[in-house]
Amino acid sequence: MTRAIDFYFDFASPYGYFASTRIEQLAAAYDLPVKWHPVLLGAVFKTTGAQPLTASPLKAPYMLRDFERTARFHRIPYQAPQVFPVGTQFAARAMLWLQQTQGDASAVEFAKAVYTAYFVDGANIGEPANVAAVAARLGLDAAALSEAATGAPMKERLKNETDAAMARGVFGSPYMIVDGEAFWGFDRFSYLEAHLKNGRI
Amino acid sequence: MTRAIDFYFDFASPYGYFASTRIEQLAAAYDLPVKWHPVLLGAVFKTTGAQPLTASPLKAPYMLRDFERTARFHRIPYQAPQVFPVGTQFAARAMLWLQQTQGDASAVEFAKAVYTAYFVDGANIGEPANVAAVAARLGLDAAALSEAATGAPMKERLKNETDAAMARGVFGSPYMIVDGEAFWGFDRFSYLEAHLKNGRI
Repeated sequence: MTRAIDFYFDFASPYGYFASTRIEQLAAAYDLPVKWHPVLLGAVFKTTGAQPLTASPLKAPYMLRDFERTARFHRIPYQAPQVFPVGTQFAARAMLWLQQTQGDASAVEFAKAVYTAYFVDGANIGEPANVAAVAARLGLDAAALSEAATGAPMKERLKNETDAAMARGVFGSPYMIVDGEAFWGFDRFSYLEAHLKNGRI
Repeated sequence: MTRAIDFYFDFASPYGYFASTRIEQLAAAYDLPVKWHPVLLGAVFKTTGAQPLTASPLKAPYMLRDFERTARFHRIPYQAPQVFPVGTQFAARAMLWLQQTQGDASAVEFAKAVYTAYFVDGANIGEPANVAAVAARLGLDAAALSEAATGAPMKERLKNETDAAMARGVFGSPYMIVDGEAFWGFDRFSYLEAHLKNGRI
């Protein structure tokens, strides 16, 4: 098995988005590939009983502020989405289909574009048409992608991927695993880098 | 009102402990005092519906690992407590009584010693006798402290302090507020420092 960083994320996760803008660069510095794994946090939370970050009235205003601060602190383009959170099944299944039919590079390019559409350009990626538009702009076959993203095989695949992620302990987004060591959150990139640099933390 | 960093924490919180070892140094670098506020996270979680970090079977092993990694990464002495979490009413009330009767410096010295007893020396600070022993070692009147920590006035005071914290938005530990800007978690010290340095983040 090739050594790699497994990168788990949900397309509605702000910290997942922040991580997506930095993970390739970090991995490349240590000659490692990144395996991108879209998952459905909603399904994970059903198992863990966890709540979305903004579900609690006491926590929500803080989290929204922290999203903006994190973007500024790390100089990452960010604009608070108008609709938050959103369902990400369609985007996740579309990405899995691209991984299968177009390869990882194309799927990763699509994932980054979906994140940008949602967290920079203000598109509601909960709407399949907006996700298809992202694919079309990349020169991908949006009609085929839309059909695949609503078909039984990709529904099954996403369910299996999410179950497999939970079986590896994934309970949030972003969640990185390398050498069996797990890192939860964009704010754990410093630990991840220490691990890559020193072989341990 | 004197400008200060309000530092909210629960004595059973590992990240609260880590923060307690660094907050004074950070504040001093910007000529700010720190106001220490022990609160009961259990009472806060009843309001927010949140769970202790180690309540979820999927999350617990990760969190325990992250406590140890965080200590190593920041070179802070740490040994996983034998009993975790523990009730911290007694310790919190004792600290409030010390603030009232001995002043802030004595109370902060006590708070640091309680944290060390729990997160370094393996004492179960859920047991009043172990907290009283910490006070005795500091030359404080352990008998008077124990009486005060179980009496109605400090029970009322801790309840009021915890309610006041929630009214300011506190939902976790550690939680720092300065200039109306809130920072949740030891991993937000970098943002807190950026705020102190630049007047914003």
